[in-house]
This record gives sequence, structure tokens and C-alpha cells, in this order.
Amino acid sequence: MQRDSFSMDLERLSQQIEFLVEIDRLKGIVRQNLLVDGSRQENSAEHSWHLAVLAMVLAEHSRAQADLPRVLKMILIHDLVEIDAGDTYCYDEKGNRDKSAREKRAADRIFNLLPRDQAAQFRSLWEEFEARQTPDAIFAAALDRLQPLLNNFRAGGVMWRKHGIKKEQVYLRNSPMEEGSAVLWDYAEQMIKDAISKGWIGE
Amino acid sequence: MQRDSFSMDLERLSQQIEFLVEIDRLKGIVRQNLLVDGSRQENSAEHSWHLAVLAMVLAEHSRAQADLPRVLKMILIHDLVEIDAGDTYCYDEKGNRDKSAREKRAADRIFNLLPRDQAAQFRSLWEEFEARQTPDAIFAAALDRLQPLLNNFRAGGVMWRKHGIKKEQVYLRNSPMEEGSAVLWDYAEQMIKDAISKGWIGE
Repeated sequence: MQRDSFSMDLERLSQQIEFLVEIDRLKGIVRQNLLVDGSRQENSAEHSWHLAVLAMVLAEHSRAQADLPRVLKMILIHDLVEIDAGDTYCYDEKGNRDKSAREKRAADRIFNLLPRDQAAQFRSLWEEFEARQTPDAIFAAALDRLQPLLNNFRAGGVMWRKHGIKKEQVYLRNSPMEEGSAVLWDYAEQMIKDAISKGWIGE
Repeated sequence: MQRDSFSMDLERLSQQIEFLVEIDRLKGIVRQNLLVDGSRQENSAEHSWHLAVLAMVLAEHSRAQADLPRVLKMILIHDLVEIDAGDTYCYDEKGNRDKSAREKRAADRIFNLLPRDQAAQFRSLWEEFEARQTPDAIFAAALDRLQPLLNNFRAGGVMWRKHGIKKEQVYLRNSPMEEGSAVLWDYAEQMIKDAISKGWIGE
């Protein structure tokens, strides 16, 4: 009896470790977003960390009361599907057409490396983030827009210029931030206006 | 009156944003630890993200009941001092002699970019992590040992071989993991024994 429970525990730990080894690959998923110093593009693991610290520091600006621990967990796993599905640039129209199907297949594989209870818990957090209906998901999504905007702006708008991004695209992508935080959207809108006036974003 | 409170809010948000821009530099701090695929060394931002997901997945193995939200916050900021102090390789005797003084100076500068209340909160979490006296800090420290061990082992022990690391050094560094989690230390010890038998760690 004890031996069976010992084997089950080992099996559980082994599944957890294999998941944790697999997700190391998120460090190799490159995003269309530079570091603040402009030296290189950032990867999705670094981005997830940065976003989590944004949540710690900026939680007080959430329009609805945010449950910070839930927001942190959601943020930490929100990009794991990119290990299979790749990062889809927010201004890539073609890529965004089948993004959802690609990411669902990825979620099926990656979360199911975990023991069943944790797979369900992680999957549900990820689906909540994607659906953007709850206050926690809406705030997490607002941060997920603010961070690349901030990095791009501080890095001199290189990526907007490189891809010839226009004002309407930036507003369409970023204005939903207001639903999560009026204060952060005010700040973001100032950056956007500034970037337009500098010619980094097209009129 | 309203205008004063508006200026204060703007001043507070501005301090928060400058802190969040400054910590982007953690993505440029390179560690003596490879990605699992061996392609390159990891940086401290990626490492912090990986560690946070380890905490989410492995919290149930903590010897004492861990307060996961506190562990997550501690982990997310535990390496920020490296922005000024650099990463000190755990087997670098000379570097470890003045590590504490260098990191205290870094904490003074970096956390104080934040508004006063958040600076105090972050500083206190960091000091708790460093002191390794509370159950949360002891568990976080155990994960901070497990992650590089796991990555090094899966990457074929390259960094142990490169630096000629010996069994005693690895035990001295990693055996405190047992205080945080008997289960994880058992697993880690199996990896260490396996790495010794493969000749990746010297006898």
C-alpha cells in the first residue's frame, strides 16, 4: 500500500519536472519587441517575468479590484502556448487569423504534461486570460499591452518604424487597455501621441 | 486640492514606470547556467520567470505550508540587485566574499526608485529571501537551487565540466534544499549522483 502511494508520488513529481523542463523552451521564443536598451528582441519568458513585476507594482491602478495572486499566475503561464504556436506579432493580420486554433492545440499538448489536476487548473487560467471577461484577465491583458508599448517607446520606436505601423493600428490594439485601467491608458495614450509627433508611428 | 492630489498620483505613477523601465536591464544579466537545449546561457529575468513557474507547480512539496503568493513575489524580485551587482556564480569563492555588500548597495538604489511604501515592501521581501529564515524564503531558496541543477543536468552538465566543479561543492551548495523540501532534495540528490557517475561532476 505504502509502496503504491510512493510510486504514484514519484509519477506525479516526474510529470511536474517534465513540464518544467519543457517550458524552458519559452526562453527561445522571440518577440517583435526590443529591450529598452534596443540591444536585441526580447523573448517570451523575459516578457512574462517583466509583466509579472508590472502587475506587482501597478495592481493599485486596476479599474476593478484585482486579485494579484491570480493575475500573477495568469501572467506567468499566459504565453506557454507559444512554445508550439510561436509568437504572433499583434499587427500580423494573416498570423492572427489562425492564431486561436494553433494556440488551442498547443494548450492541449503542453498543459497535459502536468498531473491532471494541475493541467486543468493551468488550462482554466489560460482560457480565462484569453477570454478577457473577468476583472483579473482584463487587467492582465492591459499590462500585456502596456509593457511592449513602454519598451518600444523607450527603445526609440524602432519596431513601429521597421514595420510601418500606423496610428489606427496602435489605437485598435491598445485602447482596450482602458477597460483594465483608466490611469494606465491615459499614460499609454500620452506615449502614443508623443510617438506620433516624433514620426515613430505613422499618421 | 484636487490638482495637488492629481500631481501626487502622476508623480507616483511616474516613479513606478521608471522602476519598471530600469528593471528591464535584468534581461541583460547573464548567468553561469545554460538553457536546457544547451544553446546559450540564461539571463536572470528568464531564470526568475522559470523559478516562479516552478513555485506554482511544486508548492505542494514544500516541507512547511508555503504561502504561494508571497513566494511568487519574493522570487520575481529576488535577483533585481544583480542589475548593479552582477550575477555571482555560486562556486566563485572570491566573488561571494563581497557579494552581500555589493547587493545591499544595489538594493538601496534600485528599490528606492519606487514610491516609498512599495520600496519598503519590495526591500523587505528581498531581505526575507536573503535571510532564509521563514518557511516561504526557505522554500524559495530551495527552488533557486533546484532550477539551475535541473537545467545543468538536462543540458549535459556542460557548466560543471567547464568549471571543474567537484562533488563536495555541489553538495555544499545544494543540500540546504532539504530544509525546504525533502521530496525535491531526494530528486535532486539522484541527479547529482547520476551526474557524478557520468563524470560531469568530479569525485
